[in-house]
Amino acid sequence: MKSDIQIAQEAKMKEITKIAEKVGLEEDDLELYGKYKAKVKLDVLKKLSNKADSKLVLVTAITPTPAGEGKTTTTVGLGQALNRIGKNAVIAIREPSLGPTMGIKGGAAGGGYAQVIPMEDINLHFTGDIHAIGTAHNLLAAAIDNHIKQGNELNIDPTQITFKRALDMNDRALRNTIVGLGGTINGQPREDGFLITVASEIMAILCLANDLMELKEKLGKIVVGYSYDGESITANDLQVEGAMTALLKDAIKPNLVQTLENTPAFIHGGPFANIAHGCNSVMATKFSMKLGDITVTEAGFGADLGAEKFYNIKSRFADLKPDATVLVATIRALKMHGGVDLDGLTEENLEALEKGIENLEKHIENVHKFGVPTVVAINRFPDDTEAELDLVRQKCEDLGVNVALSEVWAHGGKGGEELANAVVNVLENEESKFEFLYDEKAPIKEKIEIIAKEIYGADGVNYSDTALAQIEKYNEQGYADIPVCMAKTQSSISDNPNLKGRPSGFKIFVNEINLSAGAGFLVVMTGPVLTMPGLPKRPSAENIDIDADGKISGLF
Amino acid sequence: MKSDIQIAQEAKMKEITKIAEKVGLEEDDLELYGKYKAKVKLDVLKKLSNKADSKLVLVTAITPTPAGEGKTTTTVGLGQALNRIGKNAVIAIREPSLGPTMGIKGGAAGGGYAQVIPMEDINLHFTGDIHAIGTAHNLLAAAIDNHIKQGNELNIDPTQITFKRALDMNDRALRNTIVGLGGTINGQPREDGFLITVASEIMAILCLANDLMELKEKLGKIVVGYSYDGESITANDLQVEGAMTALLKDAIKPNLVQTLENTPAFIHGGPFANIAHGCNSVMATKFSMKLGDITVTEAGFGADLGAEKFYNIKSRFADLKPDATVLVATIRALKMHGGVDLDGLTEENLEALEKGIENLEKHIENVHKFGVPTVVAINRFPDDTEAELDLVRQKCEDLGVNVALSEVWAHGGKGGEELANAVVNVLENEESKFEFLYDEKAPIKEKIEIIAKEIYGADGVNYSDTALAQIEKYNEQGYADIPVCMAKTQSSISDNPNLKGRPSGFKIFVNEINLSAGAGFLVVMTGPVLTMPGLPKRPSAENIDIDADGKISGLF
Repeated sequence: MKSDIQIAQEAKMKEITKIAEKVGLEEDDLELYGKYKAKVKLDVLKKLSNKADSKLVLVTAITPTPAGEGKTTTTVGLGQALNRIGKNAVIAIREPSLGPTMGIKGGAAGGGYAQVIPMEDINLHFTGDIHAIGTAHNLLAAAIDNHIKQGNELNIDPTQITFKRALDMNDRALRNTIVGLGGTINGQPREDGFLITVASEIMAILCLANDLMELKEKLGKIVVGYSYDGESITANDLQVEGAMTALLKDAIKPNLVQTLENTPAFIHGGPFANIAHGCNSVMATKFSMKLGDITVTEAGFGADLGAEKFYNIKSRFADLKPDATVLVATIRALKMHGGVDLDGLTEENLEALEKGIENLEKHIENVHKFGVPTVVAINRFPDDTEAELDLVRQKCEDLGVNVALSEVWAHGGKGGEELANAVVNVLENEESKFEFLYDEKAPIKEKIEIIAKEIYGADGVNYSDTALAQIEKYNEQGYADIPVCMAKTQSSISDNPNLKGRPSGFKIFVNEINLSAGAGFLVVMTGPVLTMPGLPKRPSAENIDIDADGKISGLF
Repeated sequence: MKSDIQIAQEAKMKEITKIAEKVGLEEDDLELYGKYKAKVKLDVLKKLSNKADSKLVLVTAITPTPAGEGKTTTTVGLGQALNRIGKNAVIAIREPSLGPTMGIKGGAAGGGYAQVIPMEDINLHFTGDIHAIGTAHNLLAAAIDNHIKQGNELNIDPTQITFKRALDMNDRALRNTIVGLGGTINGQPREDGFLITVASEIMAILCLANDLMELKEKLGKIVVGYSYDGESITANDLQVEGAMTALLKDAIKPNLVQTLENTPAFIHGGPFANIAHGCNSVMATKFSMKLGDITVTEAGFGADLGAEKFYNIKSRFADLKPDATVLVATIRALKMHGGVDLDGLTEENLEALEKGIENLEKHIENVHKFGVPTVVAINRFPDDTEAELDLVRQKCEDLGVNVALSEVWAHGGKGGEELANAVVNVLENEESKFEFLYDEKAPIKEKIEIIAKEIYGADGVNYSDTALAQIEKYNEQGYADIPVCMAKTQSSISDNPNLKGRPSGFKIFVNEINLSAGAGFLVVMTGPVLTMPGLPKRPSAENIDIDADGKISGLF
């Protein structure tokens, strides 16, 4: 069996100008990055403002397990399949972070015969967006300490700075640091730490900005900490929002690449799906919707996190009306939700499967709460038995939800035709009655409780004293009328990673609520989130190599 | 009078494919970064291996003063002028660091009518080279702490790690840090710090590599610290040299842009000129030499640092034989060397000028020691009087050295014709008898003393106990047979920044000798070098802005 990188390196790429041409873009609309990557200029959106938007299909998934779901693979394969059956589909997905590719082998650009290419570039520096975000981030961080050192007119309290520094590397030694050592000329020693760049609020902002000036406005609103008097200190106060925006002038332009089957794909922006909203950029989605007839996009983790935020946050900020949801499930993962170990997945187990299907069922109910028609995609693995596949199909039929088999990993677009036809059928025959789950002006607690009860199936919400104090502070400071962004484990619909399937009889515990005033949401922490990963004992970096001809190995 | 950015934004750029065409490159030889920037593929060098190399002209300068010399401006203007008089000249200069543009207004791509464009891009992220260097750097740094955390098989002593982390931002709070705090899962707390990325040894390595495989070899040799037994620990020991090279696969390719007059210019690599050798990449120089008939390049700071290292380090590693040196001087700067204050420069002062010319005289003597024919370029400023200009001309004639007036800042290539003709005259009529000043196999002290006496005019060298111990260690460990890279103040030919003109009767004091085993030299520290700048009270970042059309202001 061929590896992902072998398949990718054997693919016949077309020049990106040709891919762009297919969707009506001219060479002058592009900024090329070599032959196979391009940024699309922002004025294209203006030029096409009278063109109708495409249909919008969100690919999401059941609760992730170590068995894998293949959400990105399904997204890419569905895009390929739609084109095979004669539709003009454009894909919009997230941009992978470089740091983690140095840790554990495996990239984030699909898999098998449903990949986006050139994968080496996409997984390394790509077009430099994440580096630009890191630079804008660290400019703001440097401005904070510099302001304090130069007299501290704003009266910033060094013990209340919430804005850390950022680096796109898995580097656990930087999680907790002391900076500013070395005496007067180096400033004020204080506790600090580093995030991996994609965890930066600036990544979330870049992904939610509708244009360059809104980007600047949102960057300026970032709260970096508090003064001794408890006043919030923003990037605007430090007067660096213009420079930060200038640093992001190219990063905001969406990146166009192609799939193995030459389907146009935007890969742009990749915020965390817990402390942020976990979707590709609004720019990528909007460009896709102007250039295609169907846009296929995805959201991070399971539908309880990714889809909920795609609907309640991204769609709200970008004024999107999703037309259909594809909910990816695998027999393997459903069996794990039914109690089977990773070792036991190759054996047929209808009993465990039936039990695990409860997880799928809950996610179906959830996406239906947003009024969006749904197709369940069974991402087929070689060991799946016919009886198992039948059981899931039957269950979906009982629930009155569309279901289709997907074999895009093994067969590319051809393996996704059943799914593509099911999606087209929904788009043509079922009307989306999309609505948000909550009013953003509702009290903070009410918003949290709606999500906890409606989406997670919790009985209620408990708050730490810290969280209660923070709610009070945000109410006072005018930060209450914005959406909430739930930071919860991806491994369970509840906030307890060990509860598989469809947990019930639990309450969500909120221990902290952080403000992402620039991105425009409150981050509700229901457990620890690691914002700076570490390297394993044998990092993937030890296997990565390059030969004299520039061919990379060991990356996947 | 127009500002640099106004002039640059009014320039008529040609598409970079057209610029490339002029020097015989085909579109397939390029990797475009938008319309006006391109990387040139490495295999072009192989393709052109039978083509004769161009003449090589190094632009260097007298000892820098706050009055300015205009070395890059002269380099760019000379390239333009040579093309105006019918020569095929290609420029190769250094790539500016992004961090400092956030601190003090002003870029590093020439000035007036002798600039390289697009200047906004060149001074911001450009083609991402410095970000790639930072990433490779921080991968190695992360690998060190990860190795210790995962069992420390190599027995690394956390108190003897010499390899810091890197960031391309002026951020003094990161000069001295403690990392690894937070308990067992985060590793071993230790003292650390950050360099600005361009100060990374990896920048020096990238600039000295003759090809991708030599790059890997050099990266592998980086010494990051020592074991408890005193053994040196290298990047090879940590097994990340392959991944580091993969991260630099595009960064090693030289960047082609153009001047205001559409002269082809490579801008690639920018190491420090004190702790490193201060020249653009070997790649850029070699590509220029295959594509042009004359290559015009530059080196950092004054000739005592930049030219000395260009000859003794870069030319040695890249097997270059420089054909001519242009030594840039200004009347203003020479008057400062003669004792005039910055405020008094607008007045004619022949006495001070005569005194200050000693500085020029010493630099002329120095470059002649390498056997390279020389042209003094007087970079004319509006306040220079005819009497002053005559005095410098006369002095040069007395010394038997060619001299020419340059007005490229005000008039572009047209203002550089006198200089261009003088350079062509030298290239056609004077033969270079280039030779190194020392044998790299000579003892460490001997190499240092040759430079101190011959170049600086010192009476001798004193060493700290630390430096003496280090010399002994490098002798034992086999790091003695490599060139020395002097880290000395740029403000004086001596190691005392206050001694202007032509100092004498002094000894050089060496307080530390650091090993850049990957770059392949010993860094001889004669004073403190700031490897992480800070921001001023009103950083330039506060003035930088961008409008809705993406037009940047406040950068220059």
